[in-house]
Amino acid sequence: MNFENNLEFAKSLDAKDELKKFKNEFFNPAENLIYLDGNSLGKLPLRTKELLKKVIDEEWGSRLIRSWNENWLPRQKSVRERIAKIIGADLSEVNVCDSVSINLFKLSSAVLQLNSDCKEIITDSLNFPSDIYILESVINNFGNKHELRIIESKDEIQISSEEIINSCSKKTALVVLSHVVFKSAYKYDIPLITKELKKKGAYVIWDLSHSVGSVPIKLDEWNCDFAVGCTYKYLNGGPGSPAFLYVNKNLIKDLQNPIWGWFGADNPFNFDLSFTESSSIEKFNVGTQPIISLSALESSLQITIDAGMENIREKNILMTEYLIFLIKENLSEYHIEIGTPLNSKERGSHITLKHKEGYRICKALIESKGLKIIPDFRKPDNIRFGLNSLYNSFEEIFIAVKRIKEILDMNEFENFDLEFDAVT
Amino acid sequence: MNFENNLEFAKSLDAKDELKKFKNEFFNPAENLIYLDGNSLGKLPLRTKELLKKVIDEEWGSRLIRSWNENWLPRQKSVRERIAKIIGADLSEVNVCDSVSINLFKLSSAVLQLNSDCKEIITDSLNFPSDIYILESVINNFGNKHELRIIESKDEIQISSEEIINSCSKKTALVVLSHVVFKSAYKYDIPLITKELKKKGAYVIWDLSHSVGSVPIKLDEWNCDFAVGCTYKYLNGGPGSPAFLYVNKNLIKDLQNPIWGWFGADNPFNFDLSFTESSSIEKFNVGTQPIISLSALESSLQITIDAGMENIREKNILMTEYLIFLIKENLSEYHIEIGTPLNSKERGSHITLKHKEGYRICKALIESKGLKIIPDFRKPDNIRFGLNSLYNSFEEIFIAVKRIKEILDMNEFENFDLEFDAVT
Repeated sequence: MNFENNLEFAKSLDAKDELKKFKNEFFNPAENLIYLDGNSLGKLPLRTKELLKKVIDEEWGSRLIRSWNENWLPRQKSVRERIAKIIGADLSEVNVCDSVSINLFKLSSAVLQLNSDCKEIITDSLNFPSDIYILESVINNFGNKHELRIIESKDEIQISSEEIINSCSKKTALVVLSHVVFKSAYKYDIPLITKELKKKGAYVIWDLSHSVGSVPIKLDEWNCDFAVGCTYKYLNGGPGSPAFLYVNKNLIKDLQNPIWGWFGADNPFNFDLSFTESSSIEKFNVGTQPIISLSALESSLQITIDAGMENIREKNILMTEYLIFLIKENLSEYHIEIGTPLNSKERGSHITLKHKEGYRICKALIESKGLKIIPDFRKPDNIRFGLNSLYNSFEEIFIAVKRIKEILDMNEFENFDLEFDAVT
Repeated sequence: MNFENNLEFAKSLDAKDELKKFKNEFFNPAENLIYLDGNSLGKLPLRTKELLKKVIDEEWGSRLIRSWNENWLPRQKSVRERIAKIIGADLSEVNVCDSVSINLFKLSSAVLQLNSDCKEIITDSLNFPSDIYILESVINNFGNKHELRIIESKDEIQISSEEIINSCSKKTALVVLSHVVFKSAYKYDIPLITKELKKKGAYVIWDLSHSVGSVPIKLDEWNCDFAVGCTYKYLNGGPGSPAFLYVNKNLIKDLQNPIWGWFGADNPFNFDLSFTESSSIEKFNVGTQPIISLSALESSLQITIDAGMENIREKNILMTEYLIFLIKENLSEYHIEIGTPLNSKERGSHITLKHKEGYRICKALIESKGLKIIPDFRKPDNIRFGLNSLYNSFEEIFIAVKRIKEILDMNEFENFDLEFDAVT
């Protein structure tokens, strides 16, 4: 599309946006705020606000323990169904529980046990560090007999699928990659990598945290082995909402959860004194789930399903392309680099700007009086602008770029200190 | 105290109850309901209902990602502080995260690594099965080199502290016991067992799930090593609210969490590509916590602190003694056995009745028209009546026993089928 560098054009894109009604599904704070951090924590859906009121007042308050059978077990299933729909899987392959890191621990431990002859694990330097830490701990738990190879990105933005494929050999037990990587938004080609690595006998666990809800995912169609992912970014599940995991139906019986808890047992309420593992995907449960946080997912996920992943993707490709256009048009003289692939097929739904004053620019955007724009910051110099098709507009993108230009023009970032908050 | 078997006497006990005002801290459903299952899921505190509204509407809805620094990290600390106060520990020794089972997995794995020369693990047949399953999985993960000894209870009610102590030897790496056991409410003598097992070099992990909030706990004063516990029973944290763990300050540096996630790292937001463990108790964090479920704890725990553990204990001793008196007076002819120690020093805050028709009696109590009484059921024949000093009254206890007598007199349980719900 031929974009134009003016507000009217942004408004004309909004006028044609078929998803724009979904903005009204969310609570939009009264203040003068443009929220571009949905890749870190999604907005509050109004139907989730309603559902949580019911969960707290009626289900916990009035029905008390009876809600386990009446509401909470059925809801865990309906949340699993919705995740399955969004990631192209069957209900029987999806569980919702615990955190991404703990789920990756379960699956990677199980894969090393399954694939015990191979002693190499491959990941990349673009992966979310917690995924790498989990692999380090699993290697430690298995007696430090495995080698962890971290494929380095030359430009800190991407690594070709071919390089990943060529790095693997018959020795490779496991590959763990983020579908969309957290800093640059580079997106791997899951179907290609899956097909080629199957030939080499390596299993792959995909971390879908930064892609789920922003990019169509078809795990069954792509013949994937395993995946984990988070629900509080593009899926708007609320702070720390439980994570999910996926195991291909052909592999469930071969895997053993390394953490045996009562909810992973064949019949938890038999209270047998020795563990018998569930034969279903529920074997990956451990303890009691945080029901209030989990309940939020039921209503939040439905918005993504209602909007449709193809529509969501179509809009965020247009939004990221428009943002890149505006950056090139308006910010080219300010020593700013785009830290995201320029080809929309190779990126998710955020755009990263790199600038040596990135942290203070970020603070100026968030903390100035008047208009506030919220991106987030990832060391050393990455400002991430997350674009959520469900509630962000082209006008917001236009205004955000204008504001960045203003901050750079006036050196406004110099008014802010370099002290880092705990969470950036 | 000399109890009397009449309603007026029950009312006179309520009149003298110094904690009775705390009932108004909770949401009490309009229906004709006596809730005696606070040992499974505590009632909804009104201040928690208010706090959660703020968390959802303001913190998530309006402040969005900014709430991590403004609200959610500080709240995790204030929740830890409150738990520390309730279990007699220092803030630096307490973490709140994940589930009891996952926390037991972390600690028991860490202890086996620390105490690697000893190959025996001891627990008992009264322990909550998930604790035993976790130990089985840890043994499996360590290559099946450890022996798990499950000390059997002869009467299914108790095991003397001496028997536990005598079962341990220099070979014993780890002992895992429930402070108050889930079926019979038998309470172990933590100070005695701790003192004697220290002489043998065995570490002890106490599961406080059924004692915390109902029995005074002084982990530091008792010189304990480790503990885990749940927050949704007597502490009223809400369904599946996050669990806690305790590590004695002298042992933190020696332990390694087997699951290395970013929130257990020295500086999570540095995003280093290799894990450096936090030196504090926060090393036992893994991923992002479910903030809404966790937030409920801040206000819920404060009620227990306001009421005072000594007062709570004094009242629940009186309540359980009164319930035992009423059972003996009214139900002695109905083939009912009391499955709880009769000495109040040896029990927590629930009373278990054993009857071969236990499940259907339970259903009759819960599902009959008119007055509903909610206990819970644990196979094969245990009806548990949990008494929470914060909201249960002596009058409720009197009415409950009268109702049980009525059900038995009229064989009302025969109107109910034996089909088990998923959660009992």
